[in-house]
Amino acid sequence: MPDAHEHRHLSAEDLAALLLERPGVLVRRLHQIHSAMFAEECAIFGVTPVQYSLLSLVAASPGLDQGGAAAALRLDRFTTADVIKRLVAARLLRVAAGVDRRTRRLQLTPDGAEVLAAMQPSAGRAHDRLVEPLPPRERAALLRMLKRLVDRHAALGATAPKVR
Amino acid sequence: MPDAHEHRHLSAEDLAALLLERPGVLVRRLHQIHSAMFAEECAIFGVTPVQYSLLSLVAASPGLDQGGAAAALRLDRFTTADVIKRLVAARLLRVAAGVDRRTRRLQLTPDGAEVLAAMQPSAGRAHDRLVEPLPPRERAALLRMLKRLVDRHAALGATAPKVR
Repeated sequence: MPDAHEHRHLSAEDLAALLLERPGVLVRRLHQIHSAMFAEECAIFGVTPVQYSLLSLVAASPGLDQGGAAAALRLDRFTTADVIKRLVAARLLRVAAGVDRRTRRLQLTPDGAEVLAAMQPSAGRAHDRLVEPLPPRERAALLRMLKRLVDRHAALGATAPKVR
Repeated sequence: MPDAHEHRHLSAEDLAALLLERPGVLVRRLHQIHSAMFAEECAIFGVTPVQYSLLSLVAASPGLDQGGAAAALRLDRFTTADVIKRLVAARLLRVAAGVDRRTRRLQLTPDGAEVLAAMQPSAGRAHDRLVEPLPPRERAALLRMLKRLVDRHAALGATAPKVR
């Protein structure tokens, strides 16, 4: 009689390949890979990818308010407020009341500007390494297709996804 | 004199576009989008994308052990153990000692098999919707390129990424 606990001996590689037929799994996996690359390249700065994005936004648009940051990051206000809180605690960002006193305007601190500038080569490497295995022409095609998908689905997914 | 809090009036769209030049941001954003689609399609089941992946693996390979599951999911053992704990608490998965008593072998419960079967159309839709905006030929090219990147970077990123 067959053992109920019998293991059908599909290898981890076969099983991983089974999951990688699914577009969402490919994207989840690539996001993991990029996060790991970013962590490798940028560990000494103690800044996460989303924090780096926010610092870039404030550098491009000093005085950006919290709602504008949330919209540009495509994150909900709660998550955005939390990212801001962490960057303020790290003294990379400061928050000032706007002219109308109700909006909270974001500015880089001198440390924030310095860290952002120092990080740029490392963060750039993390982005470049992700697509490096493809020949340059395919790289451009891939980015164009990914952008198209992100644009078409722009209304979706403003909440940080569950990872478990 | 210019106001130090002056806002340079780049729109949220301009700022979002600035970030979307970065491959890692595109992938992070698509992962968010897919998570939102999966949540929309599969909300009534209360099963996350990673949990669904694990149920699929155990269905394909009954008796899979915890280490094999971690390897196939490309997650670290700690995260995998947590996913298993949640599925056991939801009575969708059970854990039995293997023949050698040290390995923990995973089996679907009858409820787990039922939920997995019931979810398949919804989860399939979440995966299909992600790439639907592309014409079929580009869809195939995109998936082929994403798979290539995932394969080439196989050694990286076994830890669930930080979302903030």
